[in-house]
Amino acid sequence: MIIGVVIGNVWATKKEDKLQGLKLMVVQRIDPADGARHESLVAADRVGAGIGEQVLVVTGSTARKALSLDDDIPMDAAIVGILDEIELTKGL
Amino acid sequence: MIIGVVIGNVWATKKEDKLQGLKLMVVQRIDPADGARHESLVAADRVGAGIGEQVLVVTGSTARKALSLDDDIPMDAAIVGILDEIELTKGL
Amino acid sequence: MIIGVVIGNVWATKKEDKLQGLKLMVVQRIDPADGARHESLVAADRVGAGIGEQVLVVTGSTARKALSLDDDIPMDAAIVGILDEIELTKGL
Amino acid sequence: MIIGVVIGNVWATKKEDKLQGLKLMVVQRIDPADGARHESLVAADRVGAGIGEQVLVVTGSTARKALSLDDDIPMDAAIVGILDEIELTKGL
Amino acid sequence: MIIGVVIGNVWATKKEDKLQGLKLMVVQRIDPADGARHESLVAADRVGAGIGEQVLVVTGSTARKALSLDDDIPMDAAIVGILDEIELTKGL
Repeated sequence: MIIGVVIGNVWATKKEDKLQGLKLMVVQRIDPADGARHESLVAADRVGAGIGEQVLVVTGSTARKALSLDDDIPMDAAIVGILDEIELTKGL
Repeated sequence: MIIGVVIGNVWATKKEDKLQGLKLMVVQRIDPADGARHESLVAADRVGAGIGEQVLVVTGSTARKALSLDDDIPMDAAIVGILDEIELTKGL
Repeated sequence: MIIGVVIGNVWATKKEDKLQGLKLMVVQRIDPADGARHESLVAADRVGAGIGEQVLVVTGSTARKALSLDDDIPMDAAIVGILDEIELTKGL
Repeated sequence: MIIGVVIGNVWATKKEDKLQGLKLMVVQRIDPADGARHESLVAADRVGAGIGEQVLVVTGSTARKALSLDDDIPMDAAIVGILDEIELTKGL
Repeated sequence: MIIGVVIGNVWATKKEDKLQGLKLMVVQRIDPADGARHESLVAADRVGAGIGEQVLVVTGSTARKALSLDDDIPMDAAIVGILDEIELTKGL
């Protein structure tokens, strides 16, 4: 999974029926090793994440597994956790 | 999912039978954090997207899920929404 | 899917049994937005593509779906169409 | 699979139920050819890896296979081995 | 699939049970278009590849399909062929 910061929301009226009801958020990837910001993507929130929070995001088929037991929601990124703390050892 | 802008159409007469009838569009990825343009790909349109519109695109096995209940269309990118609005918080 | 140009052929005598009979071609990715050339990969041809032709390529589990109803051929890239025409709108 | 070094731990109280009990570690990818450090990701540890150890990491649907026979844990990266030795031949 | 050169071996005593018996090799990706070397990864050898040989590698869920009929080995890269010859047409 990747770590990112939630930087915004996305709205789309015209969309796949099975995407109805998902909260779509823009997440910018952060590399924990150096704090650098990278690409942004749109992920469906599963855990009540708010703007500015650091989150854990899964992608690909794993996001579908997170979003539905039936694996039938056409969404390929999901926020599955809110980061409390990250502890890094320097110099490794 | 990624955000992109629809910049064109693609035609292929000679192709897999199961791709018949799909509307194939060229989508250029946009990073919402800074608006930068990135790589382009070909995606099947599911929502009536037009040239110049910003869209939501899923890739990989998730695109197959979007395109067919039977998961049997050999296509790995699908436009699943048309972007109405994106709201970003700066400085996060 | 990506767009690429077929630039060569690949032969491998010693290989997985289930790859026997596949025509393996080298495809170099082209970004349709600017025509730039990118990385090359090896894809199994499904549509009779020839050297120098521009083609549509699917990757990952979708390539397996294209190559076999039983989803059991260990191949992760497939040429599924030959490009007739690409129509781009500039300045979007 | 990729090779990486474990550089830290991650804690998230608020998360998907099915992620409970996983040990989440930050792994920075190392390219074995030249030892260069690359992007970092969060992986679930399966083998008792410690900080500073070099590990083998699988990603995508394969991580789910590693973590559960039922393939139902929404996690897309897993540490599946601890590197004892890597033997490289130079000049190839 | 990608083309790479086998540059080394990897040993891990402590690992997932289902990885026991796999021969793990370090493969450095080569772009056939220009011969440039790129990132390296660890792949399970299926075809008796040796150090210095150029090989065909599949990744992701396709590697699992190559390694086991039951799709239950947690490995995401497999060497599935040894390159005999690659024929490229210049100037395309």
